[in-house]
Amino acid sequence: MLLALSTWSEIEERLKSSTSVVVPIGSNEQHGPTGLLGTDWLCPEIIAHEASKRASDKVLVAPTFNIGMAQHHLAFPGTIFLRPSTFIAAIGDWVRSLGAHGFTRIYFLNGHGGNVASIEAAFSEIYADYSFRQQRAPFALKLKNWWDLAGVNALANRQFPTGHGSHATPSEIAVTQWAYPETIKTAAYSPPIAPTGPIREALDFRARYADGRMGSDPAQATPEKGGELVSMAANALIEDLAAFAAERAPA
Amino acid sequence: MLLALSTWSEIEERLKSSTSVVVPIGSNEQHGPTGLLGTDWLCPEIIAHEASKRASDKVLVAPTFNIGMAQHHLAFPGTIFLRPSTFIAAIGDWVRSLGAHGFTRIYFLNGHGGNVASIEAAFSEIYADYSFRQQRAPFALKLKNWWDLAGVNALANRQFPTGHGSHATPSEIAVTQWAYPETIKTAAYSPPIAPTGPIREALDFRARYADGRMGSDPAQATPEKGGELVSMAANALIEDLAAFAAERAPA
Amino acid sequence: MLLALSTWSEIEERLKSSTSVVVPIGSNEQHGPTGLLGTDWLCPEIIAHEASKRASDKVLVAPTFNIGMAQHHLAFPGTIFLRPSTFIAAIGDWVRSLGAHGFTRIYFLNGHGGNVASIEAAFSEIYADYSFRQQRAPFALKLKNWWDLAGVNALANRQFPTGHGSHATPSEIAVTQWAYPETIKTAAYSPPIAPTGPIREALDFRARYADGRMGSDPAQATPEKGGELVSMAANALIEDLAAFAAERAPA
Amino acid sequence: MLLALSTWSEIEERLKSSTSVVVPIGSNEQHGPTGLLGTDWLCPEIIAHEASKRASDKVLVAPTFNIGMAQHHLAFPGTIFLRPSTFIAAIGDWVRSLGAHGFTRIYFLNGHGGNVASIEAAFSEIYADYSFRQQRAPFALKLKNWWDLAGVNALANRQFPTGHGSHATPSEIAVTQWAYPETIKTAAYSPPIAPTGPIREALDFRARYADGRMGSDPAQATPEKGGELVSMAANALIEDLAAFAAERAPA
Amino acid sequence: MLLALSTWSEIEERLKSSTSVVVPIGSNEQHGPTGLLGTDWLCPEIIAHEASKRASDKVLVAPTFNIGMAQHHLAFPGTIFLRPSTFIAAIGDWVRSLGAHGFTRIYFLNGHGGNVASIEAAFSEIYADYSFRQQRAPFALKLKNWWDLAGVNALANRQFPTGHGSHATPSEIAVTQWAYPETIKTAAYSPPIAPTGPIREALDFRARYADGRMGSDPAQATPEKGGELVSMAANALIEDLAAFAAERAPA
Amino acid sequence: MLLALSTWSEIEERLKSSTSVVVPIGSNEQHGPTGLLGTDWLCPEIIAHEASKRASDKVLVAPTFNIGMAQHHLAFPGTIFLRPSTFIAAIGDWVRSLGAHGFTRIYFLNGHGGNVASIEAAFSEIYADYSFRQQRAPFALKLKNWWDLAGVNALANRQFPTGHGSHATPSEIAVTQWAYPETIKTAAYSPPIAPTGPIREALDFRARYADGRMGSDPAQATPEKGGELVSMAANALIEDLAAFAAERAPA
Repeated sequence: MLLALSTWSEIEERLKSSTSVVVPIGSNEQHGPTGLLGTDWLCPEIIAHEASKRASDKVLVAPTFNIGMAQHHLAFPGTIFLRPSTFIAAIGDWVRSLGAHGFTRIYFLNGHGGNVASIEAAFSEIYADYSFRQQRAPFALKLKNWWDLAGVNALANRQFPTGHGSHATPSEIAVTQWAYPETIKTAAYSPPIAPTGPIREALDFRARYADGRMGSDPAQATPEKGGELVSMAANALIEDLAAFAAERAPA
Repeated sequence: MLLALSTWSEIEERLKSSTSVVVPIGSNEQHGPTGLLGTDWLCPEIIAHEASKRASDKVLVAPTFNIGMAQHHLAFPGTIFLRPSTFIAAIGDWVRSLGAHGFTRIYFLNGHGGNVASIEAAFSEIYADYSFRQQRAPFALKLKNWWDLAGVNALANRQFPTGHGSHATPSEIAVTQWAYPETIKTAAYSPPIAPTGPIREALDFRARYADGRMGSDPAQATPEKGGELVSMAANALIEDLAAFAAERAPA
Repeated sequence: MLLALSTWSEIEERLKSSTSVVVPIGSNEQHGPTGLLGTDWLCPEIIAHEASKRASDKVLVAPTFNIGMAQHHLAFPGTIFLRPSTFIAAIGDWVRSLGAHGFTRIYFLNGHGGNVASIEAAFSEIYADYSFRQQRAPFALKLKNWWDLAGVNALANRQFPTGHGSHATPSEIAVTQWAYPETIKTAAYSPPIAPTGPIREALDFRARYADGRMGSDPAQATPEKGGELVSMAANALIEDLAAFAAERAPA
Repeated sequence: MLLALSTWSEIEERLKSSTSVVVPIGSNEQHGPTGLLGTDWLCPEIIAHEASKRASDKVLVAPTFNIGMAQHHLAFPGTIFLRPSTFIAAIGDWVRSLGAHGFTRIYFLNGHGGNVASIEAAFSEIYADYSFRQQRAPFALKLKNWWDLAGVNALANRQFPTGHGSHATPSEIAVTQWAYPETIKTAAYSPPIAPTGPIREALDFRARYADGRMGSDPAQATPEKGGELVSMAANALIEDLAAFAAERAPA
Repeated sequence: MLLALSTWSEIEERLKSSTSVVVPIGSNEQHGPTGLLGTDWLCPEIIAHEASKRASDKVLVAPTFNIGMAQHHLAFPGTIFLRPSTFIAAIGDWVRSLGAHGFTRIYFLNGHGGNVASIEAAFSEIYADYSFRQQRAPFALKLKNWWDLAGVNALANRQFPTGHGSHATPSEIAVTQWAYPETIKTAAYSPPIAPTGPIREALDFRARYADGRMGSDPAQATPEKGGELVSMAANALIEDLAAFAAERAPA
Repeated sequence: MLLALSTWSEIEERLKSSTSVVVPIGSNEQHGPTGLLGTDWLCPEIIAHEASKRASDKVLVAPTFNIGMAQHHLAFPGTIFLRPSTFIAAIGDWVRSLGAHGFTRIYFLNGHGGNVASIEAAFSEIYADYSFRQQRAPFALKLKNWWDLAGVNALANRQFPTGHGSHATPSEIAVTQWAYPETIKTAAYSPPIAPTGPIREALDFRARYADGRMGSDPAQATPEKGGELVSMAANALIEDLAAFAAERAPA
């Protein structure tokens, strides 16, 4: 079930029996010569929507939080990012909104490694209000990267034993190829596997990683491999969300 | 051309000849018994994407800014909002990102009346940095509500001479019906035309407007009317954006 | 009754029977070759004080919020402004202060169009705290531009059928001429009616509007016309405030 | 010369020969049974305007910053305050505005002891931007309490050898009596001289200081004494401002 | 008792009988040719630890808040500072943390004059939350400079009848010499007593005060004098804290 | 070399040949029945000071950033924390201060896992300013947990093959035992190895982890093991810092 395509009364009804919700969260940033700028928000959106299609009663999907923390990519055109302080404020407002309706399990399915620190900081910022007041929070928050869903990393490693890398990876590009086959692009990658190294400000990043990739060989991506990843991830998400929903807070 | 489905090098190439971009911006909030929670961000997204399809070389569309200022709707489940201070910070980061790439005309196509004040405040917050430093801004910002595009309000008035109202209007619901026909919902509206009045905090709002509508009769919406609105709006957007792109700053 | 010229015990006593208060709010910014820098905060102050003089028991006037959102005027010396984020924080503190005393109707009489977005954003920021907590706000907030008080625009249109414009208007200058006749200035306006156009950062503004006016011909202002405007506005304010005070929140 | 009653071109002209400006700054807060709520912003405004009347070419007076840091008085109706963070942001915007015009000496004439810490913190916040960038600031900032102007404290001690106290003092009340004789109020003070002690949150303050005074006996105030204070302070302000304007920054 | 060298259960136990705590607070900033960069946080730490050693049951010492407001010293290498807004936020979090545990008397022993305004502003910011809600604060906050402890200034004046000055004073340097004798440094001061003047941004400061001192002659410092100061201050702190702990809030 | 025990001129001299600095950073929070509240800031301080003692010319140590992000521990007395937004602002001010002096390699040696997200977010917040302006940052920032220094985790695994856990670990407690042997405490742990699970707000944390430990058996700690860890970590820090200092930014 997609929240944005539902009415308020449908959500009000659903909350009587289920109070969990998935928020796809990512980033709009350069993904090398062939990766889509939207890759990092499209992947969790694709997976969450697929999970919802397979188990609508178990998976309610919020709109996608599509701009993340990607300051290091800003020297590549098309990147849009929120600085961490803005990001933390925005996550806070999303959570307070969902919490006000009675959602007790808010699950962020993340598509961008660079978001992890800011999402965790945002969770702490939210919890801190309750901790200072010595109150219980009415909701639990969870962050999961889609590649960390059960079985997904193992599958990606089998699909791409070399050249997976950490940015503009063949696995994420494969996922978008499966969902948006009309956007598949090709390029002559040089070198085939991109270099790796530290991440600092945007100009430093572009000087180190000339075409935007980090450690990856996206040429190995295919829509078929993407479809396999989506299928495995969607099923794992359904399971993981159910386990989260079933968790009980300590007395 | 959709920015999120492009690569950074495609955007870099495009910037050599065209430096304008459209950002669809809306809200995820209750829209009465039959309106989709996503109505206000779906409408500008639908129109901008349609315009881009018709004139890809003239209309570059950024990802959709899908959560807006909708505190007054929070007593209806499914609403998610950013408080104005968060909203202003986020718009600022979007604009600074796009400006860093060389976009000189940033056009926000808005789908939510409740966003107008916060968007204008955000523009002023951004410009203020340049004004304090007595510097020219490298970009111009424009806000346009999709219903204010040339001809659109007049068409809506012809389509819905009574009961258009100001929230959960038949015109916006028609637009989503055209784009998402599988989500069309019906309800027995009582009264047929909803009441109007002031807007304050969320509980006050729900007490005044029991089913979420303000002054509107959404029963009049049809996908066909929605298609007419989209077509007129998309063409007008192409024109309006071209005029904005052609504007020259004063010497 | 003027709050600043009262004692705390007088206000405590008054609150037993009347819990409404008017806050004149404006801006200190250039107003063309002859308009006073204080025009936009002087006008609502003049009108509110006049209303209080006529109906002291009905109209309690707070100190004037004299610096507003005027970033676009900063290239003209004498302009002082608050950026929207500061403005929103300040309005919030004013409202929380007045609300703590038991004022339930807080009426902002505004004298600057450029303030409208930031005032509305400020109201939403304040209400949002209550909405997130799903609580009723203990006060209602209202924004009214003095020229939108009943009858005032119509009178100004009769007084100034052409060349009213939108900044450094003959009507606002007339109001200050009536109250501060010793400050009346003259200039040779060229062109007689100033140009109009968009509003962006300060240097852009000064490049477009060389003497600071927008669309106006202030030469038509006279103290007599100002007196008529003040009289009509003051009476309308008394009525409008009474109606606001009499409003009942929905159950 | 009063900035708010001037035009931008008058200020532009004046800046060619004089770049100093006085900002009266105070607070709107309870001042005991007979003191006006506006006492703390009226006093510096009265003195600065008087100085300007005496030496218009030397003393340019900005609008009054009329709401200050007075959280401890909020349990007494009519008090309005800015929390320090808001106050600091607002001072920053005033200073950046004035600095953008070329004012190099910005002199805050203060009327409220509770403002001192926040004004100094505001100055440091402003300077810090320059210090982090290792740049010279284009302006110097100065804070002066009106009672610290040359001769004023000594005069007040002669006028009120006992019962001057620290809040709702006879000297400040005398100043407002001189300027607003129609607002003079009387009360039976009990005890004649109010107690003293620490300052904490508002309810604690009201519990300690039942009628709002701290250590003072306002019954000794007269308009005549107020006039003497104003005269001495106005002259001293003219001198002090001239000395400040004449200061040269170190090489 | 030092909080950082205790366990949570020891603190929990202690809170049953004593709810006061001392926070040493200072700054890390240049202190002239021979003063340690840490002087201003080392002094209150040394004194508070000494007091705790003498009266462990009466004096619980929190970790040292070691970075303060020292923007004006930033042109001298080694200085680290928090801008006032950061400083205020940090003090707020310390106080809210300690308050959540049930500490009712939070005593800041300060070692840097430049901190005073920001600490007082921080206290007001914290209290303001309670004042806006018309609630009592669960704790009282106190600021004391170590040189203002009973007898300390008098002793310093006897030790250093001339050349005490206001920055890099012989008294503070003596205190660190007593505690860290291995770090004693010497220099040929020229002039022997440093100049005095205003404090503005960092480059202005370094231009005025070439070696960093203000009005002082640190050559007079000796470890013995430092030991006398520490002893007197430690005893006075024990007394002052006991008096603060014994204070009762008004009914 | 310890920055706080140096003079500004010593630091100015050193910067001519070496521009790297280590900032020990940790947290003051409960560490189970026997761990010191200061454990997480003491460990990196102990290691950094030891490294400085061994290689003073290579290792300059700043004051310790002793309060971190520990909201989840606040239900245990003695914990003090900064919320992420405060933490990010404070790191920013430290870095801007050090950067202003010409430090080009700023190395945070961290002692608290809960700090990692906020430190990384802080780095991104700082870099973002340069990225938005498309400028190179004048410094590189590095975060290293002391247990991730070369060889340290492996040693800890040999020392504590079971029951190392993730909070109040025997390795960190051993480090403080070595440095502060007079503070060694004992307790009857029940169960010997503490449970593990998620981290949320403070009351949830205390309900899950009754004595504060997570997965650990601190009874295995000894000062000797602590000494081994410190020695290995100090040497590794010297190496790691040298490598960082030798890094060259890309062209």
